[in-house]
Amino acid sequence: MKSDPSAPSNPLWGGRFAGGPAAVMQEINASIGFDKRMAAQDLAASKAHANMLAAQGIISSADAVAIIEGLDRIASEIETGAFRFKTALEDIHMNVEQRLADLIGEAAGRLHTGRSRNDQVATDFRLWVRDALDRTDRALAALQEALIDQAERNADTLMPGFTHLQSAQPVTFGHHLLAYVEMIGRDRGRVADCRRRLNECPLGAGALAGTSFPIDRAMTAQALGFDRPSANSLDSVSDRDFALEYLALASILAMHLSRLAEEFVLWTSEGFGFVTLTDAFTTGSSIMPQKRNPDAAELVRAKTGRVFGHLLGLLTVMKGLPLAYAKDMQEDKEPVFETDETLMLCLAATTGMVRDLTAVPERMEAALAGGFPTATDLADWLVRALGMPFRQAHHVTGRLVALAEAQACPLEALDLAAMQTIEPKITDDVFTVLTPEASAASRTSFGGTAPERVREAAAAARERFL
Amino acid sequence: MKSDPSAPSNPLWGGRFAGGPAAVMQEINASIGFDKRMAAQDLAASKAHANMLAAQGIISSADAVAIIEGLDRIASEIETGAFRFKTALEDIHMNVEQRLADLIGEAAGRLHTGRSRNDQVATDFRLWVRDALDRTDRALAALQEALIDQAERNADTLMPGFTHLQSAQPVTFGHHLLAYVEMIGRDRGRVADCRRRLNECPLGAGALAGTSFPIDRAMTAQALGFDRPSANSLDSVSDRDFALEYLALASILAMHLSRLAEEFVLWTSEGFGFVTLTDAFTTGSSIMPQKRNPDAAELVRAKTGRVFGHLLGLLTVMKGLPLAYAKDMQEDKEPVFETDETLMLCLAATTGMVRDLTAVPERMEAALAGGFPTATDLADWLVRALGMPFRQAHHVTGRLVALAEAQACPLEALDLAAMQTIEPKITDDVFTVLTPEASAASRTSFGGTAPERVREAAAAARERFL
Amino acid sequence: MKSDPSAPSNPLWGGRFAGGPAAVMQEINASIGFDKRMAAQDLAASKAHANMLAAQGIISSADAVAIIEGLDRIASEIETGAFRFKTALEDIHMNVEQRLADLIGEAAGRLHTGRSRNDQVATDFRLWVRDALDRTDRALAALQEALIDQAERNADTLMPGFTHLQSAQPVTFGHHLLAYVEMIGRDRGRVADCRRRLNECPLGAGALAGTSFPIDRAMTAQALGFDRPSANSLDSVSDRDFALEYLALASILAMHLSRLAEEFVLWTSEGFGFVTLTDAFTTGSSIMPQKRNPDAAELVRAKTGRVFGHLLGLLTVMKGLPLAYAKDMQEDKEPVFETDETLMLCLAATTGMVRDLTAVPERMEAALAGGFPTATDLADWLVRALGMPFRQAHHVTGRLVALAEAQACPLEALDLAAMQTIEPKITDDVFTVLTPEASAASRTSFGGTAPERVREAAAAARERFL
Amino acid sequence: MKSDPSAPSNPLWGGRFAGGPAAVMQEINASIGFDKRMAAQDLAASKAHANMLAAQGIISSADAVAIIEGLDRIASEIETGAFRFKTALEDIHMNVEQRLADLIGEAAGRLHTGRSRNDQVATDFRLWVRDALDRTDRALAALQEALIDQAERNADTLMPGFTHLQSAQPVTFGHHLLAYVEMIGRDRGRVADCRRRLNECPLGAGALAGTSFPIDRAMTAQALGFDRPSANSLDSVSDRDFALEYLALASILAMHLSRLAEEFVLWTSEGFGFVTLTDAFTTGSSIMPQKRNPDAAELVRAKTGRVFGHLLGLLTVMKGLPLAYAKDMQEDKEPVFETDETLMLCLAATTGMVRDLTAVPERMEAALAGGFPTATDLADWLVRALGMPFRQAHHVTGRLVALAEAQACPLEALDLAAMQTIEPKITDDVFTVLTPEASAASRTSFGGTAPERVREAAAAARERFL
Repeated sequence: MKSDPSAPSNPLWGGRFAGGPAAVMQEINASIGFDKRMAAQDLAASKAHANMLAAQGIISSADAVAIIEGLDRIASEIETGAFRFKTALEDIHMNVEQRLADLIGEAAGRLHTGRSRNDQVATDFRLWVRDALDRTDRALAALQEALIDQAERNADTLMPGFTHLQSAQPVTFGHHLLAYVEMIGRDRGRVADCRRRLNECPLGAGALAGTSFPIDRAMTAQALGFDRPSANSLDSVSDRDFALEYLALASILAMHLSRLAEEFVLWTSEGFGFVTLTDAFTTGSSIMPQKRNPDAAELVRAKTGRVFGHLLGLLTVMKGLPLAYAKDMQEDKEPVFETDETLMLCLAATTGMVRDLTAVPERMEAALAGGFPTATDLADWLVRALGMPFRQAHHVTGRLVALAEAQACPLEALDLAAMQTIEPKITDDVFTVLTPEASAASRTSFGGTAPERVREAAAAARERFL
Repeated sequence: MKSDPSAPSNPLWGGRFAGGPAAVMQEINASIGFDKRMAAQDLAASKAHANMLAAQGIISSADAVAIIEGLDRIASEIETGAFRFKTALEDIHMNVEQRLADLIGEAAGRLHTGRSRNDQVATDFRLWVRDALDRTDRALAALQEALIDQAERNADTLMPGFTHLQSAQPVTFGHHLLAYVEMIGRDRGRVADCRRRLNECPLGAGALAGTSFPIDRAMTAQALGFDRPSANSLDSVSDRDFALEYLALASILAMHLSRLAEEFVLWTSEGFGFVTLTDAFTTGSSIMPQKRNPDAAELVRAKTGRVFGHLLGLLTVMKGLPLAYAKDMQEDKEPVFETDETLMLCLAATTGMVRDLTAVPERMEAALAGGFPTATDLADWLVRALGMPFRQAHHVTGRLVALAEAQACPLEALDLAAMQTIEPKITDDVFTVLTPEASAASRTSFGGTAPERVREAAAAARERFL
Repeated sequence: MKSDPSAPSNPLWGGRFAGGPAAVMQEINASIGFDKRMAAQDLAASKAHANMLAAQGIISSADAVAIIEGLDRIASEIETGAFRFKTALEDIHMNVEQRLADLIGEAAGRLHTGRSRNDQVATDFRLWVRDALDRTDRALAALQEALIDQAERNADTLMPGFTHLQSAQPVTFGHHLLAYVEMIGRDRGRVADCRRRLNECPLGAGALAGTSFPIDRAMTAQALGFDRPSANSLDSVSDRDFALEYLALASILAMHLSRLAEEFVLWTSEGFGFVTLTDAFTTGSSIMPQKRNPDAAELVRAKTGRVFGHLLGLLTVMKGLPLAYAKDMQEDKEPVFETDETLMLCLAATTGMVRDLTAVPERMEAALAGGFPTATDLADWLVRALGMPFRQAHHVTGRLVALAEAQACPLEALDLAAMQTIEPKITDDVFTVLTPEASAASRTSFGGTAPERVREAAAAARERFL
Repeated sequence: MKSDPSAPSNPLWGGRFAGGPAAVMQEINASIGFDKRMAAQDLAASKAHANMLAAQGIISSADAVAIIEGLDRIASEIETGAFRFKTALEDIHMNVEQRLADLIGEAAGRLHTGRSRNDQVATDFRLWVRDALDRTDRALAALQEALIDQAERNADTLMPGFTHLQSAQPVTFGHHLLAYVEMIGRDRGRVADCRRRLNECPLGAGALAGTSFPIDRAMTAQALGFDRPSANSLDSVSDRDFALEYLALASILAMHLSRLAEEFVLWTSEGFGFVTLTDAFTTGSSIMPQKRNPDAAELVRAKTGRVFGHLLGLLTVMKGLPLAYAKDMQEDKEPVFETDETLMLCLAATTGMVRDLTAVPERMEAALAGGFPTATDLADWLVRALGMPFRQAHHVTGRLVALAEAQACPLEALDLAAMQTIEPKITDDVFTVLTPEASAASRTSFGGTAPERVREAAAAARERFL
């Protein structure tokens, strides 16, 4: 277990830490590398704060005007790429503040009156997460639209519905796609709830205790689109449950996407062949030009891992932290930023695949020919037409399926006389339920797979969600 | 890496698997060991289903009456412990169904008309989670009440507010406790949102495709207290996002509890000594009778781990599962059941500790004597009274603090003349802000720590939450 | 968000906490409910300790004899079920100690000389994990044996090897199964490393600081099969990395099993049909007697979630705990116990399925007929026989595959003349590489899929692992 | 839940996806953004492969020379920053291959003979992880050295040893630090085991089935420092357990670091004050110049979260993937790369803090004055000197501690006569064990805290680890 003696003599402070402790400290401490993504939110919050300070007479109007103009100039410098972010200034707040001082001098120093970096970062981050939620909601709506479009196109397309990946009952492909519309609808509900809950403004909580300046927290809250100021200053700077709630809904959403992605991988495999995707979302092989690897679907499926990881990561960070602010919380941003990027990418890819797919009804039909997927229809017919108790109908059906299996034919190809050797009361009315078409058409219960229900459900989903 | 030759010759089928494959299969497959906890929900759903079948004329009234009476008898058998759960019958549904057949004969077989185990278990489990959410909400409200009570009692009790576990600014202990009331309030909001979202009835979705029987899903939904039937049969039996949403809110809640638990551990340590707990929530040592180990707090802190683990476990289960039902989903229940038990226990212990604690103001005051916690008050005074820009005020304050440190005295004990050597414009009005009492009292911004604000906030919280 | 007024008036102390704080504290604090599973380890460690105390003259021989006899009697009481575990005595250590006092009186009190519950529990738990590792190793070896047996049986059975779940190159089923033998081999390596690393004896570390009694730690270590006593008393009672290492290797192992389980689900699906399982590891449907749901495979796949969850749960528990012992660590046992149960069950089920499976060569062959799986063989032939650079050979192959696709025939059915229109230098030697049989047989590189290599690899694996 | 109508009309393909599906596919599919970090490994593997191909006569020596020269040139282009990485070329392998073709023409095409991207990436990634393990081992050794240095410096420095964060028994600060040396030693053991286990060369496994070219896998394995070629081609390209094993050991290591970090936060807090850190690893406040926030320690503690998250993330990716290669596995690299960066940073910061710390013996002594930390010494004395059974000695000690508490004095300040009222047999020899110094000095059992043992342990650790 001894170290390799040929290793660099000073491994610790070598490489990127050649600067010794100062280099280590700067690297571990600075957040500007990632929190500059909150520049727009930081500037907006500072403008709202400056206007409020002036309205309350805490700073002069002239100072406020200078501050606002300076912040606007910084905004345009950042937009054009002219702004120089400096690691030595550690974070976005100090980078902006220092630049403001360069631009407008002493007045810049008054902007920080009645606030602290702790309430400032809490405000910026909530604004950022709120934007991410809005972005997510739009992308989810686009996915729902793509699903509903395909569902309408395939309201009558029959395929086997699976349980245990074994053919169970005929469903329509449109019905299957609408299941995802519902899941995504609940994801959007979680997005909306998270947005509503986080929409309280921490600005004015100060470092942790509030402030003695006569600030008007309702005014800044309103200016920034918050519903109200937050009710407790310690809580305002100490909690990150809104970020965790976002990561949790993202994880559930990513799980939903992983299921559809898995289905794309299965459906495009040779064993199923239920759908085709174009080159837009598959990759070929120079050697096997006919091959279309569902890379996009596999990556959507896989990226679930990083979203789950980010959720667990931030839960771990926050576990057991005493109030109020601890530097640990600086670790809150990267998982959220990276999750937003992942979600946007996965949603774009998934929506793209849904739009891109073409159903292959002949493969779906071929799959329906095996596995006796109308066996439950037969049992239901026995119950309904002959008044058999359900469990007995099950038993009779089992014997009829065994007969069909022995004859290597589907149920609808059985001879009535043969069926009557097993259950004499069966009439030829039974043949009205034995085809996949009849099976699907008969499932007219609310939420069922009958094509008419699927069309109604698609129309209703369009109304509810788009 | 070779196996130990002295090991039992047939390790695999030995021990509890001595029965060979059949024993293995029974053990891995049966869920009755845990899903019997859903007996009440299963019976309620069956009764609602039977009543609906009769109302729709799908079964006779006589059958319905027999079924209901049989189910009621089973309910009382379970309550009294007379019911014999059988592993061979695999799950709660088959255990109930078989017993019903024993009790009422053929009619029992008609109960399963128009439903399947897939929609049945989805319904039972939603009902169970709904009950767990209601239970959680009540326990959270009790915790809020205990916190508000203590907050009112300690609205004036001064303590150091910490950042980085370093004394930062004076706050009141009541204010600190109210931060948790806000956190718990958001937890309750998540509970309510989860409950509302899951409150759609899957019954009638059948195995996955709906049913051809003329069932009335609205009727069963209403009978079971659901807001409406679910909109897509495939989705109804395939998704478990409601369980994940529950586990996610439980994880965030457990994180909140872990923070308060950590504070109990710190506050009762000799280094802090801010609160005492009685024997009710500590354990002593036969050898050190004065010692009070905060075992309950440590366990609340630790049990966070299992809640996070359950969330990530179920996320993992659901990742990449194609629709519709897969046996994998049988793994959904234990993490939820165990999380509910953990939350109830941790909430009881936490509420108990909050009620049990006694603040030790003298230790809090002693802690305020060090660390110059009113330095920001001094800086704010320089801004407000002398019109200094904030950053310059910071600088002057820094020099005054250094002076106090050199003299080993708190800021309020500095001599005015000495202060004026650093900033000549300082007047003796400055002494009005230098004590912890003055500091806290001055932070009157909405959500701030001033005792009057704390009292208002406690009253408002009582109104909003209890 | 108001509480339901109809809720029980005292929700917190109701139900199982009706006893109030005392009931809460007992429930959260007691570990006897699960740590009684360490009874055998606790008794063994106590016997070793007693013998050492006597050998060192710290207690009398007579006391030692009484203690040993008492412990043996307790062992047999536990075995016969006569032992009464008492929650009031909190844990296995106190339950044993109290019973010993009942049995032998004062001498029992001398057993605890020179040790503490902290080193005692650390010792017991290491012994338990060591047993679990040995158990796991035996079950892994049994799985390897089942895989090797099937691999030898199927050394020539051709199937498509998949990438992206698309047919890529022919492999033999035996080769595919041997991949898992390697994975499991590495899992066994991790088991062995974990066992070796944990095999240091904490007994004698005392509460945290060691002891002033002249104990002989080497003697107890040896008596309990440890390699040596642990080197630092604080570390000995504070760390649980051995449990985490066990959970980590269990997670990687569970991941491996989940992959094979997924393959069972795919292989037994109608789209693939590569293997069949008997009723021993599938469940049928009363209504569809031909259906065989791969429930055991699905459950093995799903149970991965709980193992991951246990790992992350205990990582969370241990994060940020200051030394030395904290009550949090009591949460270490349940995840480990439950993981052991899960692994034993999943390994038994997986080994059972591997033994139980029957390959269906005709379905594998049918799958090889599509997808041009010998395209890379063709390209390799162009490189080898014609000296083409690899990338050009790729290009030519692509054109030949396109030709075959246009003619809807496999590559080996192409006409030589037609091939020469694309690449004139092709000779009829090319047909020696175009069949799946030829392809597989040609891949003779070490570790390759040629049947002769597979047979050698199976023999080598038998030698290395069994 | 309706979308905001004012939102951009085409949210999905807007922004960075303005290029539509092609832009989405490129962004989700390309890995060059991160896998260029494996450039050195990729070049080394290609050189080894080219040399082997020539040695086996598969390519000409001239081609091999041209290839090697081309690869060397690419290496220097990358080093100098002249190399242009192209996203359109997707990954590091294609970027290098294309550039090689530009540089040396047709011969470049021969390099890919007998290999595939699947075995190539598996080889590169193993080499990269192996380097990371070596880097980690060196940094761990540096941390051990810093800990041992401080331990030797503080072999006699007394402090309270804590259980439940309550003072339990006196230990020396050196002893406490050596506990971490042991933990880190086991971490290094896990590093070494992981390195040894992964050190098998996948090169030559081809896409998944091996190759028909007469390659010499032993030669490439040796050239790249591997112990042997891997035994199964399917396994070689399909598994990523080595990356998971790395992430698992990193998680356990991060957990260890989080515990020491937590102690730094506690020890530098005002309530403890046991150590001071200089400005090198703390940040001050412009307003409170005396304040030293332990930011580095907090960040080390927090970054545990991201390491755990990466482990869970990759476990999730791999769960349930059928063999062989799936694109999902492309998600293996970022968590590993990011974990390596995090570990290097956290280890540098932790080692820096250990070197930087100064113990404050007077605060440690002050903490020893409370809490009766020698109570167990007193009990042990009663056992040893008076022959009392341990449990009775506990009881007597409890009464003596209560007496001292009533008199508000430490145990060593009790009057002999007063002690004798509780236990008449006590002699004044008891005073030899009642001071913290005597207590620590007496704990001479192997691994105990006696200063002489600590010095021996430090020397032994230096021998074992450095």
